[in-house]
Amino acid sequence: MSERTKIVLDESKLPRAWYNINADMPVPPEPVLHPQTLEPVTPDFLSVLFPMSLIMQEVSTEPYIEIPEPVREVYRLWRPTPMFRARRLELALDTPAHIYYKYEGVSPVGSHKPNTAVPQAFYNKEAGTKALTTETGAGQWGSALAMACNFFGLDLEVYMVKVSFEQKPYRRILMESYGAQVFPSPTEHTQYGRSVLAQTPDSPGSLGIAISEAVEVAATSGGVKKYSLGSVLNHVLLHQTVIGEEVLQQMEMAGEYPDIIIGCTGGGSNFGGFTFPFLRENFKNGKNTKVIAAEPAASPSLTKGKYAFDYGDTAKMAPIVKMHTLGHSFVPPTIHAGGLRYHGMSPQVSALVEHGYVKARAVPQLDTFKAAMTFARSEGIIPAPEPTHAIAVAIEEALKCKESGDAKVIAFNLCGHGHFDMAAYDTYLKGNLEDYDYPEAAIEAAMAELPQVG
Amino acid sequence: MSERTKIVLDESKLPRAWYNINADMPVPPEPVLHPQTLEPVTPDFLSVLFPMSLIMQEVSTEPYIEIPEPVREVYRLWRPTPMFRARRLELALDTPAHIYYKYEGVSPVGSHKPNTAVPQAFYNKEAGTKALTTETGAGQWGSALAMACNFFGLDLEVYMVKVSFEQKPYRRILMESYGAQVFPSPTEHTQYGRSVLAQTPDSPGSLGIAISEAVEVAATSGGVKKYSLGSVLNHVLLHQTVIGEEVLQQMEMAGEYPDIIIGCTGGGSNFGGFTFPFLRENFKNGKNTKVIAAEPAASPSLTKGKYAFDYGDTAKMAPIVKMHTLGHSFVPPTIHAGGLRYHGMSPQVSALVEHGYVKARAVPQLDTFKAAMTFARSEGIIPAPEPTHAIAVAIEEALKCKESGDAKVIAFNLCGHGHFDMAAYDTYLKGNLEDYDYPEAAIEAAMAELPQVG
Repeated sequence: MSERTKIVLDESKLPRAWYNINADMPVPPEPVLHPQTLEPVTPDFLSVLFPMSLIMQEVSTEPYIEIPEPVREVYRLWRPTPMFRARRLELALDTPAHIYYKYEGVSPVGSHKPNTAVPQAFYNKEAGTKALTTETGAGQWGSALAMACNFFGLDLEVYMVKVSFEQKPYRRILMESYGAQVFPSPTEHTQYGRSVLAQTPDSPGSLGIAISEAVEVAATSGGVKKYSLGSVLNHVLLHQTVIGEEVLQQMEMAGEYPDIIIGCTGGGSNFGGFTFPFLRENFKNGKNTKVIAAEPAASPSLTKGKYAFDYGDTAKMAPIVKMHTLGHSFVPPTIHAGGLRYHGMSPQVSALVEHGYVKARAVPQLDTFKAAMTFARSEGIIPAPEPTHAIAVAIEEALKCKESGDAKVIAFNLCGHGHFDMAAYDTYLKGNLEDYDYPEAAIEAAMAELPQVG
Repeated sequence: MSERTKIVLDESKLPRAWYNINADMPVPPEPVLHPQTLEPVTPDFLSVLFPMSLIMQEVSTEPYIEIPEPVREVYRLWRPTPMFRARRLELALDTPAHIYYKYEGVSPVGSHKPNTAVPQAFYNKEAGTKALTTETGAGQWGSALAMACNFFGLDLEVYMVKVSFEQKPYRRILMESYGAQVFPSPTEHTQYGRSVLAQTPDSPGSLGIAISEAVEVAATSGGVKKYSLGSVLNHVLLHQTVIGEEVLQQMEMAGEYPDIIIGCTGGGSNFGGFTFPFLRENFKNGKNTKVIAAEPAASPSLTKGKYAFDYGDTAKMAPIVKMHTLGHSFVPPTIHAGGLRYHGMSPQVSALVEHGYVKARAVPQLDTFKAAMTFARSEGIIPAPEPTHAIAVAIEEALKCKESGDAKVIAFNLCGHGHFDMAAYDTYLKGNLEDYDYPEAAIEAAMAELPQVG
């Protein structure tokens, strides 16, 4: 083992632009609809929640959007992130495949989420926003935005799903360390929160409820507060493409080009950020990389959902988009990969899967933890529960190479470390991890509530 | 801010040798004494606990010891580690000083401890050892050794202080994820553990008790199991010099040389690893860097202890060395920097302080967390409680520069992230953090129990 293990980009190679896949989408975009009128939304409607610069990115068809220098300055605190050749994993699997992984866990909050949190805070600050609101489940997104708001001098209110607020205090404390205010949702602060509590005083909360609360607070603040979302939307995914743009350079340094790339996907921000630059190369530069989206079997929007118009949130306050959905009223089982527990999916990722440019695969929870242990014991890093889905698929593909004798090049994104998720590993190691059945009845019931559009 | 923020060494610059300060110590070494006979120990006595290769490193006076290639292969999973220019911290302090920090938190377990865990596992494997035993407090050392033993196929038994085992399960789970067995000490496994439990059935344990248990298990295993220590000894400190050797190269890349370097110190492994290569430059190459050891005011061996012969452990089973000690029976207050709660100190670090080559400074707990917040809100990274001591001194020195107008170059080692220590930050943010008084009476009582040597 004499070749390079860690492929490190010099700071001077930090990308100068994000990539906007809207410019090269092989299928025309579907309109975004107003949640009440079901008519296409206007920028005015969105401007209650977002600054105009982010709305313009949301609808832009320019291929590249320059990364502002103050954002790059913050990125430099941890970017470029390293890419690794997983030699020990290859040996453990006895595969001829070359396995690479990009590692986003070196960010100060341990995940890829700051890649969009930082520009969102920056553009809001520029637009005169004083405070942001957001929701968070286990706290990965909330802690990234808390760090970003601290850097740009914005206040932040985080509505954190109550059951996570109580059971997973570490990320809550992380948010508070950066100066954010964190509330267990549902709260008494909002009309929607109060209505939930009136009906269910001991509600454990849900991501859908928390989104609705954060949106309501921003929408009723008279323009003082804006709302920030950590996934699904185009501007979020494009900020994350800094990952894939770095990987393209790093693969070149390694002297290889991937045959297969894999990202886990919940709302799509990690997946899009990692894979969209490679899809551009497929669309425009004659490359032919197989792109696989790995999702949880317990929340299988891409593999079992319907490609249809649906609300982004449970309370039907967010816009309606065309996407793979399990129904906005579907509450996914409580798998440990909290970041993948979403009923819908990025419209871009959905369209790419629908038209065959991206393959989707669902992985049961037990398989993901088994893959995580194989990975951790060979590469050392304990992965967050979300990227274990990508690891499981990467191992599956590497073992196919062992069968066939093909030395394929496989790359995946390790979007976060698991140091905040050790309780999940404890459950697994004790043999108590549940392997949820595909929640067919709940999904069928939720499907009946899709909005009737067109 | 256009200059480089992150100074990254290419993998090809990973050091090929550790530095052994014994070769250049300006003062002659003191003998190591047998705990029962008080006579100088023989390699035979030590060989019950350690393989001969590590014993030879312990007593070596060669300046450089080659890092074996299998160890470098594992190092490459996270080394070389990045060094940062703390530009945002400089701005926050409004200081003309240039502040740099080396960041060891990128290792898979989040600290510098694997730098010695990996070679210790390697040399034991080479010597035919089947299993290692060790103690751990909060689990930083135990998790590093667990990862290392997993890589080299050794079994590992970790005796973890019971109160930490119960209150801080995350690092315990991390150790188990790598395949180690973790026991809450005192246990019924050992004669010493049983004697403690007979006297105090609900004993919360202590590092001293845990060391004694781990040593007893190895010593009575008939050579099957050896014992591994994470600090204090010369071979441990020399393995850690890979840190300082990298920093020397990184400072050269930055085009500066430090006027002041700072490391936190408990047993001395982080401090020695970071500073010894710079002390070599002071001793041999005409450099004049000021070297500061930052220790907790609640466990102030260097600033308030006695430079005397004392036992390394509470049960008087470990060898007697000349060091700064608070007395082997002294139990430090339960500060959050668990890695600095030790009654003694590395003999090398002690001698260097005693003879004026290193300055020592004690920092109260509240000041360290205040410094940690200043750092986290400017640089993003939440530090482990141990390096907050170095951060506090670095900030103090930077503010002196602000007064004097000197643009001094200050560097410190950020030896770990605080993602496993968020409960401590919660206590601080809620205003409940205790600022222990200097435990004068307890130290005086312990001093009375020093062995009568010479």
